[in-house]
This record gives sequence, C-alpha cells and structure tokens, in this order.
Amino acid sequence: MHVVEIIAKKRDGQTLSKHEIEYFIHGVVSGAITDYQTAAWLMAVYIRGMTSQETVDLTLAMANSGDVLDLHDVIEYAVDKHSSGGVGDKTSLAVLPLVAACGVPLAKMSGRGLGFSGGTIDKLESIRGFRVNLSGDEFREQIRRNQLALVGQSLSLAPADGVLYALRDVTATVSSLPLIASSIMSKKIAAGADGIVLDVKTGSGAFMKTLDEAHELAEIMVQIGRDAGRDVTAVLSDMNQPLGEAVGNALEVEEAIKTLRGEGPEDFLEHCLFISSEMLKLAGRGEKWTDDTENRALLEAKIANGEAFGKLRLLVESQGGDVAMIDDPSRLPQAAMIEPYTAVCDGYLAKVEAMAAARAAFELGAGREKKTDAIDHAVGVKIYVKQGDQVSAGQELATIYANDPARLPACCAALDEVFTYSDSPVERLPLFYDVLRSRQG
Amino acid sequence: MHVVEIIAKKRDGQTLSKHEIEYFIHGVVSGAITDYQTAAWLMAVYIRGMTSQETVDLTLAMANSGDVLDLHDVIEYAVDKHSSGGVGDKTSLAVLPLVAACGVPLAKMSGRGLGFSGGTIDKLESIRGFRVNLSGDEFREQIRRNQLALVGQSLSLAPADGVLYALRDVTATVSSLPLIASSIMSKKIAAGADGIVLDVKTGSGAFMKTLDEAHELAEIMVQIGRDAGRDVTAVLSDMNQPLGEAVGNALEVEEAIKTLRGEGPEDFLEHCLFISSEMLKLAGRGEKWTDDTENRALLEAKIANGEAFGKLRLLVESQGGDVAMIDDPSRLPQAAMIEPYTAVCDGYLAKVEAMAAARAAFELGAGREKKTDAIDHAVGVKIYVKQGDQVSAGQELATIYANDPARLPACCAALDEVFTYSDSPVERLPLFYDVLRSRQG
Repeated sequence: MHVVEIIAKKRDGQTLSKHEIEYFIHGVVSGAITDYQTAAWLMAVYIRGMTSQETVDLTLAMANSGDVLDLHDVIEYAVDKHSSGGVGDKTSLAVLPLVAACGVPLAKMSGRGLGFSGGTIDKLESIRGFRVNLSGDEFREQIRRNQLALVGQSLSLAPADGVLYALRDVTATVSSLPLIASSIMSKKIAAGADGIVLDVKTGSGAFMKTLDEAHELAEIMVQIGRDAGRDVTAVLSDMNQPLGEAVGNALEVEEAIKTLRGEGPEDFLEHCLFISSEMLKLAGRGEKWTDDTENRALLEAKIANGEAFGKLRLLVESQGGDVAMIDDPSRLPQAAMIEPYTAVCDGYLAKVEAMAAARAAFELGAGREKKTDAIDHAVGVKIYVKQGDQVSAGQELATIYANDPARLPACCAALDEVFTYSDSPVERLPLFYDVLRSRQG
Repeated sequence: MHVVEIIAKKRDGQTLSKHEIEYFIHGVVSGAITDYQTAAWLMAVYIRGMTSQETVDLTLAMANSGDVLDLHDVIEYAVDKHSSGGVGDKTSLAVLPLVAACGVPLAKMSGRGLGFSGGTIDKLESIRGFRVNLSGDEFREQIRRNQLALVGQSLSLAPADGVLYALRDVTATVSSLPLIASSIMSKKIAAGADGIVLDVKTGSGAFMKTLDEAHELAEIMVQIGRDAGRDVTAVLSDMNQPLGEAVGNALEVEEAIKTLRGEGPEDFLEHCLFISSEMLKLAGRGEKWTDDTENRALLEAKIANGEAFGKLRLLVESQGGDVAMIDDPSRLPQAAMIEPYTAVCDGYLAKVEAMAAARAAFELGAGREKKTDAIDHAVGVKIYVKQGDQVSAGQELATIYANDPARLPACCAALDEVFTYSDSPVERLPLFYDVLRSRQG
C-alpha cells in the first residue's frame, strides 16, 4: 500500500477502506507518513468528505492509535463533556467544578486553541503555576482524592488526533464534519469515558454554521458512540453570538469564577446549568438525577453554598496553581490598556456576531495562527449585550483589554463587525435547539 | 494577511488575488509558510483548480522568487525548449546540438527525473565525468565559447518551484494543470529564455492523458508566456507509445548519439527535426529560418556533415565528460544481462503502452521513487515496434538490459502489458497533433 495512492484516492473523492484508514493513521503516528502528506490528505478529506462508515473507522483507528484509558479503578462510570468549540465558551471551567460538587467524579482531558481563540488548557494556563500535565499516577491520585482532575490531552491517548488536530489548525482544515467528529470522539473513547455530553455549537460563530450541519455532526457522533459502546447525549446549542461576556483567556477564567460565585452572566449560567443537568443524568444512569428541575435546584444550591467554587479552588490548588488568583481574579494576567467600545446609534441589536468577536480578541493576541505561536493570556474583549437588546448611542457595548496599542485598530475594526443595529425590535436567540441521546443496553 | 485564510479561500474554490499569491509564494521560499501548509494549499489547488489569471500570477511569483537570469550579454535572443515529460524522451540530447550546429546559441537548464524515468541530467550522468553543475561564470564562458551549455537546474532560480515540486511528488498533487504550467514556465522565465518551445506530451504515457487536457495546458502556458513578454511555441505531441526505441539512461544517450550520426530511429528523428525547426523559427525572429522545408534541409545537412554530432562531442568534452564514450557508445555503462522479449502471437499491434514501458525500465532500476534514490544508468529496455506494426509470433519486439536477475520478472510482467495484439490492421499514431504560437510585438 502506498501513502500517495491513499491520498490520491481521497483526492478523487473515492471511499477509503477500513484497512486503508488504519494504515494511514498508523503511519501518521509512527512518523512513516510526513506532516505534509497528512496535511494534503486532510485537505482532501475536508473537500471530498467521508461516508459515515469512513468516519466511524477513522475514529476507532484514532482512538486505538495509542493507550486506551480504563478509569474503572477510580471511577465506576466515567462521565465526560465536550464542546465543539465556540466564542467565549468557558463552560468546562464552570461546569466541571459544579458537577463534581454534586458528587460526580470527573477526569477531564482538554485541548488547546483552534483558530481564533484559546482552548480550555490555554485558559487554565492564565493561572500561574497550574500544571496541565500530570503523570498517569498523579491524575488517578487527583481523581481519587478530589474527584476532579483537569489536564491537557495526554500525548499517549489518541496520539493520531494530536498530530491531526495540530495540523488542521494551521492548514484550514478545522471545520470538516468527519474530522471534527473523529477528533472529539476518538479522544473521549481513548480517555475512558462511559458517558459523554457533547455540546454541539451551531451558528455563525461555530464550525457548524447551520442547524442542519450541527444535527449531522451530532448524529455522527452519537452513531460513533453507539458503535464504540458508550452513552452519548448531544446538545445543540446556539453560537451565533458569544456565550457569556468574556472572550479571551484570563478574562474567561475570571468569568467562570464569577459564575461559580453566583455572579456570572445570565446566559452563561443558564448554559452551564443545562449542560450540568445532562451530565448528572448520565452519571445517575436512570437511577438518580433523572429530573431537570431537581437537578437545577441541586446545582443552584451548590453555587449558593460555595461548594462549586470550592471545587474549582481545590482543583487549582492541587494542580499547583496560584489559588490567590482564584480568590482574587484581579491577580490574573491583566491587560495594560482597557478601552470602552460604544454603540454608534440608538436601536435594537439585530446581530452580535460571535465570529467577529473572536477575531477582535485574536487581533489582540488571544489566539494562535501556528501551533508554536504564544498566546497573550491577558488580552481579549468583553461584550455585554445580546441580540434583541435595546441600546442607546454612546452606551458601552464592549470593553477592549489590550497590551499592544498597534493592535487596537484591527480589534476595533473587528468589533465594528460584531454589532448590527435595527430600528425595530429583534427576536432574541434561544440557548438550545435540540438534544439527541443514545444509551447502551 | 493570514496564511490560513489564503488556504481556506482556495479550499472553498475562491479566486486568489495576485497579492495573496505573491504573499504565499514569498512565504514558501522564506520558510514562514511550513511544508504542511503548502501541502494543504497544493491539494486545494489540485481539487479546486485555478483561473488563468491565478496561474499567470502564480508563475510570475514563482519566477521572481529567486534570481532571474539575464543572458543578453552572451546571447542576443535566448531560445529554450521544454518537454512536459515522456517515455523515451531524449529529445534535448539530440535537438540541442542540432540547433546549436545551425548557429543558434543555447543555454539549457534541465531537471532530474522523478517517477518512472530519469531526466536529461540523469541521462547525461551516464557519461563519466560530465559536470552538470557549472558556476555562473563557467556557464557563461561555455556559452560564449561553444554556443552550447547544458546544466542542472540552478537552485537559485525559481526556488519556490523547487519546494512545490518536491512536495507535489509526495502528496498526490503532481498532475494538476495550473501547478504543471506554473512549474514549467516559472523555470523557463527565470532561466532567461526569450523564446520557448514547449513539447506538450499527450496520451497514456503523459501527465496529460487526453488531447483536451494537453491543449488546455498548452494554452495556459502560451498565455503565461505572453503575459511575461516571452515568445512561446507549444507543440502537442503523442505519448501513447514510447518515443524512439530506448527507455533508460545510457541507452537513451546512445540513441541520441546514433540519431546525430544519422542512424537513429525514424520516429525520434522526425520528432527532433520538427522541434528543431520550431526552435530555429523562434531564433530567426521572422527574419530567417521561417520555412519548415528549408529548416529541415539545413538540419539534415548538419547531421550528414557531422557538425551536429560535433556539437554534442564539444559539449561533453568542455563539461569534463569522457568523449571516448561519445565516440564509441559501447563504452557507456553496459548492462550485465541482455535478454530478448518476443511476440506471443501473429498480428497487428493495437497498442504499445508507453507507461508500461516506463515501468519495465523502472523495475530494472532506471528511475527513482524517492529523490535520494540512486539510478542504474546501464539498465532499461529497447522497444522496436510501434502501434499498427504487423508482427509475427517469436519476433523480437524488445530487448531487456538488466543488471539484477531478481528484477527481471517484474520487468517482463510490465512488458507483457506494453503490447496489445489485434487480428485486423490498426491505425498508426501521429507524432504531432497541433501547434500553438504566441509572438511578442
């Protein structure tokens, strides 16, 4: 079998066999297939697509490309969550402590940034000293002791995904349905998840621009989960406008902290309660936590009594992070310049474009273009308004947190594209569109 | 400008601006754009194609990516030729001395072979001592003194093509029309050619399988030449069956020598006279050598009086090659085993497949799979028959020149695929299909 022939086959829109996919993924991991060959193949997959069967085969080949974690010695039934990526999406930072505070042990592996914004791991690195790399023993010990650990994706789990993910980010092959589905699900499967809540974002700021695409992605991932013997809940949530207010690394950590203290933005809190309730339902396995209303009351109580915040504090402390930054978020990396951005006229907001908001933060240095690029944790934007809000000329719609004055004009130009005004009232956007579920047995 | 956005634009089938193409090619050469980003972009270009304007812009960006040679101190009007690559295509070895013998100064840079057969430079290296790397001063001095120099492609000319060419080979992006056109023309433009004869091969043994594809490639290259201020003649020639008899490095040198002595195969001689006449017409710039019949008579006279052979001898001698090998081709590298390959039945030849013939030579070691592979100069095949020939069972259709008996079976299997027999007469193939011309001013 020749690598070039496999690339050519996908280039020409043909279907790859399970054997060819396994051969390719094996070569990606062993190094027999070079980065540039993989990149050419990724572009061919992006443009030509993959059948459902190819996507399932790719996912399982990736999941089996390294170690496959079995956490059953420390967690009877491991629940995991994943977001397909959105602007201002700091959900994991709030939801994991919240669900853990309810007594559900969580062992989470997260990724770095794709495209315009940083990932959960990038955000956590805003906290001085926070160790995202734990040894296998440390990880288990951490789960056993605190029932919560949050680390970077282990290089020994689904190593094929590590290679593909890094390459996709810099070769314009991120937003491909089979590549997104296989990347997400291979990591979750290899990380030993028994039940997975997938937060599939849809809208102009998501990889999946339309609800149909998001639905398709959700269905493929549910199908992969079924084939791999895992329970899956896929939630379709809105990503036309940013989630919460903060877009940027330290700014999002700050917002997660506020939310766990009961001071977070309303939409973000609602989002977290919904996702958390779905995680509880999986963890309860039909025996407890079956009712959304009760779950919500439990979760709100965990915020009110400080236990949720306490779990975050414990997580940071036990992974070597500077707890003073959690107790006092003003100690997190701070931008040198803080500039208001105001409404140009009276009216209703017809759009608050998530992607433009992401670009505004990216222009300040909040994301990375190449995998070796550094991220500026302090910079970003806060956007205080949502579609449908009524605003007045001069009202502060957003705040810019910048370190380099030379980057301000590009950020402002991007912010100009965030807001669209209307003379007449505009409908608000829902937070969620649909939920898909698949249970084993 | 972001690299990833340029890749994404082409991925989505959009048209790149001249500025974006220049930015990309500059990044390819400077190293700011990585091999994997380039590979993803190449695949996007392969699948999505390029407009004529994009292809022209790409070519000029590549031509200007390094040194641009100006030969006007040694040649008033520089004529060059290029073949898009064919099986048994040793045209340059015969045509350059032939045209130079008519008083046209020629400064040629040639490439090495990738794929099934060696390139002109590989073939020349069959001659002991022949130096394919001359310094700039040596190159000019050689042209001034002998009016003929033939060297390897300088790395400082069109360096972008060097990067793209190497990547295309291993990422299944070779046979893309805009990439082929820009690769060929950027080198010719950077090498200082004022007038260029392009031998565009078409047929099962060429990159361009159909006449339509070849025509499209020829038209784009003529257009690029026009936009770059060069005269271009594009000849569409047949590559369904091998050109001449010999396929292999030293074997092709021997055939070129024979042809310059008036003892070459008829089809190859015809091909050389045609291409040479077109080169003379360019060199004559409408003032002389305008008539094919007269040109042909002149060229035949140069063969008959030994001047054409004398030019080859002078070329070899002055570039350090062993002239004894030219005077007596039996001194060229010789294969240890010479085996006949005979017809299995009586009949007419319905096909003499060029690509299978190339594979037969490749199986013996005449080509290279990776650019670091060594070539066996002695090995190859000679094929004595053409489509339409009547043959009898047992007749020697081909001869195998091998060094390694273990490689014979694969060579014979490939030869079995060269010949297709028919009970009824079969039409012969033409040598040429069409000629396209563009002149400045």
